[in-house]
Amino acid sequence: MLGEFEQIAQIMAPLAEKAEGAFALKNDAAVFHHDAGEEIVVTTDTLIAGVHFFETDEPELLAQKILGVNLSDLAAMGAKPAHYTLNASYPADITSDWIKRFAHGLHETQKRFNISLLGGDTTRTPGPLCFSLTAYGTVTKGKALQRLGARVGDLVCVSGTIGDAALGLLAMQNKIKDESGWLAFRYQVPNARTALGQALVSVARSCLDISDGLITDMRHMQVGMEIEQKAIPLSDAAQHAIAEDSSFFGQVLNGGDDYELLFSIAPDKAEQLTDIAEQTATKISIIGRITESPEIRILQEDGQLYTDYPHGYRHF
Amino acid sequence: MLGEFEQIAQIMAPLAEKAEGAFALKNDAAVFHHDAGEEIVVTTDTLIAGVHFFETDEPELLAQKILGVNLSDLAAMGAKPAHYTLNASYPADITSDWIKRFAHGLHETQKRFNISLLGGDTTRTPGPLCFSLTAYGTVTKGKALQRLGARVGDLVCVSGTIGDAALGLLAMQNKIKDESGWLAFRYQVPNARTALGQALVSVARSCLDISDGLITDMRHMQVGMEIEQKAIPLSDAAQHAIAEDSSFFGQVLNGGDDYELLFSIAPDKAEQLTDIAEQTATKISIIGRITESPEIRILQEDGQLYTDYPHGYRHF
Repeated sequence: MLGEFEQIAQIMAPLAEKAEGAFALKNDAAVFHHDAGEEIVVTTDTLIAGVHFFETDEPELLAQKILGVNLSDLAAMGAKPAHYTLNASYPADITSDWIKRFAHGLHETQKRFNISLLGGDTTRTPGPLCFSLTAYGTVTKGKALQRLGARVGDLVCVSGTIGDAALGLLAMQNKIKDESGWLAFRYQVPNARTALGQALVSVARSCLDISDGLITDMRHMQVGMEIEQKAIPLSDAAQHAIAEDSSFFGQVLNGGDDYELLFSIAPDKAEQLTDIAEQTATKISIIGRITESPEIRILQEDGQLYTDYPHGYRHF
Repeated sequence: MLGEFEQIAQIMAPLAEKAEGAFALKNDAAVFHHDAGEEIVVTTDTLIAGVHFFETDEPELLAQKILGVNLSDLAAMGAKPAHYTLNASYPADITSDWIKRFAHGLHETQKRFNISLLGGDTTRTPGPLCFSLTAYGTVTKGKALQRLGARVGDLVCVSGTIGDAALGLLAMQNKIKDESGWLAFRYQVPNARTALGQALVSVARSCLDISDGLITDMRHMQVGMEIEQKAIPLSDAAQHAIAEDSSFFGQVLNGGDDYELLFSIAPDKAEQLTDIAEQTATKISIIGRITESPEIRILQEDGQLYTDYPHGYRHF
């Protein structure tokens, strides 16, 4: 096992090469700045082995997940990703080789999102492997997208497909067939919608990312809405699973970890969505509208309310 | 035990009241900005029960320590503290009352340093109580103090008194007498030198905070120096302990957690130190000078080298 200082110099410092203000990770702190007219968006998540991921997860995939969940929060605010800091707590059985593979996963994600490591802290822990990652992005001052702000009549939209991650977790537990591996991949690697988030600035009236589950995150918008069940976009793999057992649709509505964007727009902005979908190469679906009535109601094709789902998962 | 959402709303959100960009902790992320001509300084530390603090520590004191160690890093860079984000991982036996007392400690420290909570993440953990805190400050662009940069002939200076925290840890383990409680207090509550750090911008040539131990942190400056043993400032309590057992002086040189500033200045700036000490109400001691020879040498009063100390503690 490398010592703390060697590990930082050899494994982590190359990840900070492009960030001048990281001082090659040799200082007490790092510096960065935004352009005039912008502001910093900051978000942070803790992931703990046995709670948020499996100890046996591939370190490369785990790195993508840890960065991905935070980049998704930046996406939800409409921010352009810039930097991140990483707090890593390693139990004694984590090897230098494991950390190198983890750093490789960080590096691949950095390249994809054009971001760099800025600093962090590495400690030993008698407990489970634990990471806290804090991501920094920029947005035009006062223009950050927010959860609250949807108005009656707004269209409710989502990106991508919903429910894959929840079904993917079941697939990894061998409770569901996943021949293509798509569902498990979607559980393991969040596809942060950073390009879409930036495109929605000044277009969407409210926005958040779907991390706790579709219904739970809809509740976070603190408005009522009417959703058409058949408009909720499903992947082929998810459709296949639900065709075999329709109860899996409850997972689609309540499972977390999709990291798609859920947003509302004024009806007169609907035509802009086609362009935005094309420019950002992102599927966008209009699934319903904000109602005066404060409930979240899901309408089946026959006009009946869909009620066959438990309450959204609460982390704590 | 309160649920995650209630806990955030009831206990944590009041800490974010003064930070407009925290959106009352209801968003995916927070926003903040700096004035034109400034940049952000960011620093982060993880503290784990059983590694960095005792599980039985008073939550109010623990909160002050966790904020204090990060504010000390901001001080070392010459930054003015502004905000912080907090990642808290709670084992099942932590009560809402404990968290309320912890939040009270944060609030007291916030008032003292004029900072506010900006966001964070709260999770459950099957492992030990764990906090990662990230602090944000501002500094004039390009003016952040750095560890490297000391030149031959510079005077080596420290703030406050050295070694109290290391002796305080021994006092808490009943290995040393600490009638006034001063040594234990110094171990438990870092006195971040943020006013001094800001005053040293454009005055000091290099600066860092003493967290790993005086000798180890001197090594981080990557220059040689000659230090006069009798010039190293000791508190009355530390002097008393060393008078009883001179081997405790090794702890003074090598024990961590003092969170005083160690810095170098050009000799012609020495006279400014008196004003700075007065303005910031901080004791400053000149303890030696930077040498061409790359070693760190500690001279005793009789001119002999002091060599009776082990290597600095390495965290990892």
